[in-house]
Amino acid sequence: MSVEGLSINFATVRQGGTFGGIVDACLRHGVTAISPWREHVGQVGIAEAARIVRANGMRVTGHCRGGFFPAPDEAGRRAAIDDNRRAVDEAAMLGAACLVMVVGGLPAGSRDLPGARAMVADGMAELLPHARAAGVPLAIEPLHPAYAADRACINTLKQSLDLCDKLGDGVGVAVDVYHVWWDPELEAQIARAGRDGRILAHHICDWLVPTTDPLHDRGMMGDGVIDLKAFRASIEAAGFGGPQEVEIFSHKWGARPVDEVIRTCVERYRTVC
Amino acid sequence: MSVEGLSINFATVRQGGTFGGIVDACLRHGVTAISPWREHVGQVGIAEAARIVRANGMRVTGHCRGGFFPAPDEAGRRAAIDDNRRAVDEAAMLGAACLVMVVGGLPAGSRDLPGARAMVADGMAELLPHARAAGVPLAIEPLHPAYAADRACINTLKQSLDLCDKLGDGVGVAVDVYHVWWDPELEAQIARAGRDGRILAHHICDWLVPTTDPLHDRGMMGDGVIDLKAFRASIEAAGFGGPQEVEIFSHKWGARPVDEVIRTCVERYRTVC
Repeated sequence: MSVEGLSINFATVRQGGTFGGIVDACLRHGVTAISPWREHVGQVGIAEAARIVRANGMRVTGHCRGGFFPAPDEAGRRAAIDDNRRAVDEAAMLGAACLVMVVGGLPAGSRDLPGARAMVADGMAELLPHARAAGVPLAIEPLHPAYAADRACINTLKQSLDLCDKLGDGVGVAVDVYHVWWDPELEAQIARAGRDGRILAHHICDWLVPTTDPLHDRGMMGDGVIDLKAFRASIEAAGFGGPQEVEIFSHKWGARPVDEVIRTCVERYRTVC
Repeated sequence: MSVEGLSINFATVRQGGTFGGIVDACLRHGVTAISPWREHVGQVGIAEAARIVRANGMRVTGHCRGGFFPAPDEAGRRAAIDDNRRAVDEAAMLGAACLVMVVGGLPAGSRDLPGARAMVADGMAELLPHARAAGVPLAIEPLHPAYAADRACINTLKQSLDLCDKLGDGVGVAVDVYHVWWDPELEAQIARAGRDGRILAHHICDWLVPTTDPLHDRGMMGDGVIDLKAFRASIEAAGFGGPQEVEIFSHKWGARPVDEVIRTCVERYRTVC
């Protein structure tokens, strides 16, 4: 039985092995949409990854990830752009709905957050023509403010949409409940994102209380405090009809058998999302 | 030699012992401004704490803390208001510049963040007449979004100032670099807070990369990535002239001798803040 509307991000099932192994695991549970990471693509090569996607009729809700634009020097920033172009090309070959952009934080040794944000805007602007030509929308993912220093200096939906406004066509947002659930302006900004046609992806998981690890303690849907049904209602009211993509970075879930993890995702998707 | 412009929050030197012991430690390093917690006041009693403050001519930049308004039922919410009234009375007896409000997160078992925020607004409104009568300004402290679930559902300066606007006189904000440094609207909202005369306290520490513990891994000023000099310039340009108050929750610094901690605070205050 196919599970319509659910996508599994490979970060949720890193223990599932290779690109093909994870696809097989998803299919065993009726999941036909995925979001791979570049490391999984790198292991088998992009041609083989794309073949697996096509052969199994998988829907690719996003390719993870581009971004990490800020760097201490011009050479580093150029290298980041070049690498992002390759990520765009991979996303195109996979037929991904978007390339997810984790934009990067402060360059090493820097305390200049506005400067880092300017590097992100510049990097996005430079990458965008290539992405447009390849037909790959760039999905800026605002990351939780806890990651502002080391992963992404774009930290709210409003900030992401303001950047989209500056950049124009071919760019939107990936809305991950974990990163934005706390935002007092969440509803207004989701509505705005919908009006502007900017919602490219929707990631789900849960916020645990307490959270014991800043990076790897995301919760399975239903185990935390995010009102997932209300969130889904907002995002669907804003016009987003794509799959909900489960992305759980968790030492706990990473230690469990891949079939148990995907079975739990399916069950929770049906009951609490 | 007195260190003008520096205040030590007792959370920074919990290992310093009693209320009087921490005051003595501060004075050994020329620090004449403090911000105690209610647990320290409770240990010696408010009369004795107030006597120590007066006898040593200490400036009290804030009393920590009121808040935690949301509760699952009406009885819990009433109990919170009553406890907050006692906190206001303590702050008045200490001559504190403000009562710092950590407003509370989701009630146990709840996923209703807007509901929790409404409880905070209601609680503040109910407490405010008592605080005004006592001459104690209430300082809403927006907490980092990482604490939205379990400590404070007020998470940005803008959200805090919007609530101040609703509440009227006798209320303002405590601006802690740790909680707000990442905010893309930081500068505009600090300027707004200054224009409205709402800045009641300014807390400093640093954001470490990586942060290993969500609660107890704040950094000493200079050890992290916050541009503290730029932050101070913003807040002083907005008209705040009070002391910078060091509040560091840290297992690492909590394990060091209190004199080493205060000496380091003084040195860093002079060099990197």
